[in-house]
Amino acid sequence: MNFCSQCGNRVVITVPPGDTHPRHVCPACGTIHYQNPKMIVGTIPEWESKILLCRRAIDPKRGLWTLPAGFMENGETTAQGAARETLEEANARVEVGELYSLYNLPHINQVYLMFRARLLDLDFGPGAESLEVALFEEKDIPWDRLAFRTVEATLRAYFHDRRQGRFRFHMADIAPPPK
Amino acid sequence: MNFCSQCGNRVVITVPPGDTHPRHVCPACGTIHYQNPKMIVGTIPEWESKILLCRRAIDPKRGLWTLPAGFMENGETTAQGAARETLEEANARVEVGELYSLYNLPHINQVYLMFRARLLDLDFGPGAESLEVALFEEKDIPWDRLAFRTVEATLRAYFHDRRQGRFRFHMADIAPPPK
Repeated sequence: MNFCSQCGNRVVITVPPGDTHPRHVCPACGTIHYQNPKMIVGTIPEWESKILLCRRAIDPKRGLWTLPAGFMENGETTAQGAARETLEEANARVEVGELYSLYNLPHINQVYLMFRARLLDLDFGPGAESLEVALFEEKDIPWDRLAFRTVEATLRAYFHDRRQGRFRFHMADIAPPPK
Repeated sequence: MNFCSQCGNRVVITVPPGDTHPRHVCPACGTIHYQNPKMIVGTIPEWESKILLCRRAIDPKRGLWTLPAGFMENGETTAQGAARETLEEANARVEVGELYSLYNLPHINQVYLMFRARLLDLDFGPGAESLEVALFEEKDIPWDRLAFRTVEATLRAYFHDRRQGRFRFHMADIAPPPK
């Protein structure tokens, strides 16, 4: 950030009075520009014993498989955002169920929220950001071609819980990848 | 938002190619300025059968009581943010436990995440944003002087669960207040 989005002047980085963190502050109009973490919301779409995955058509991780998920938008709830992303990436309609996992990624200022979801029909297919969309049995999950560690962690917890016959909420922190 | 924070030119509102939402876009440098919901993270600090509340020294809702909570910052996890807010608002050190409630407030683009937490000592007191800080038994909670509906919903669920002898995760959407 270089310029004030309110008045167009150059911003400076300073700790505002009474604050504890350095912020981008406009010396002309006084606006403090806060920057906060973003939420990624998505689903684990279930159809009988299968899970729907999308192969990414965009970077990062083009060509690898992911659960449908993306940045939460203003004006929606977490569950609405998760359903919207599932529709956009997989043209799939779901009934969103319980919150299943929360992953903190503080090194990139993101929080992942993944919901269990019931696929309502088999009329799905790749959206603009997907190369292909398919249902996978546990034994067929492409573990070595998953796009994100959040997706791998969610799927490993999911299948573990399913074998135990009991789904529980999972929360964990994900460290930066090894250099 | 009027000006591009990257290059200082005036922005326009348009739906970028391949996007589904109108965004602030800079016609000069091409930067798309996304705006996303923010997370409020906080705790339910427990000491024996009592809960710690803070009376707000700042607007909105100055003079009313709240659980310690505030905007999550970049570079921290949800639990770290909840502990930091508890330290800032109540000078209170806590061990953060389970995620207890998630409230969606889509009309103001906020998601509240409240954690159960164990107060580590009684050496607490008002931070800069609090007028006073105190421990309350359930019967003494100032229900008609609580600052936010998210706080009331969290406390009502908490005491209900405690009477049942079983805490479970709560998720709900909070509609705009009646006009």
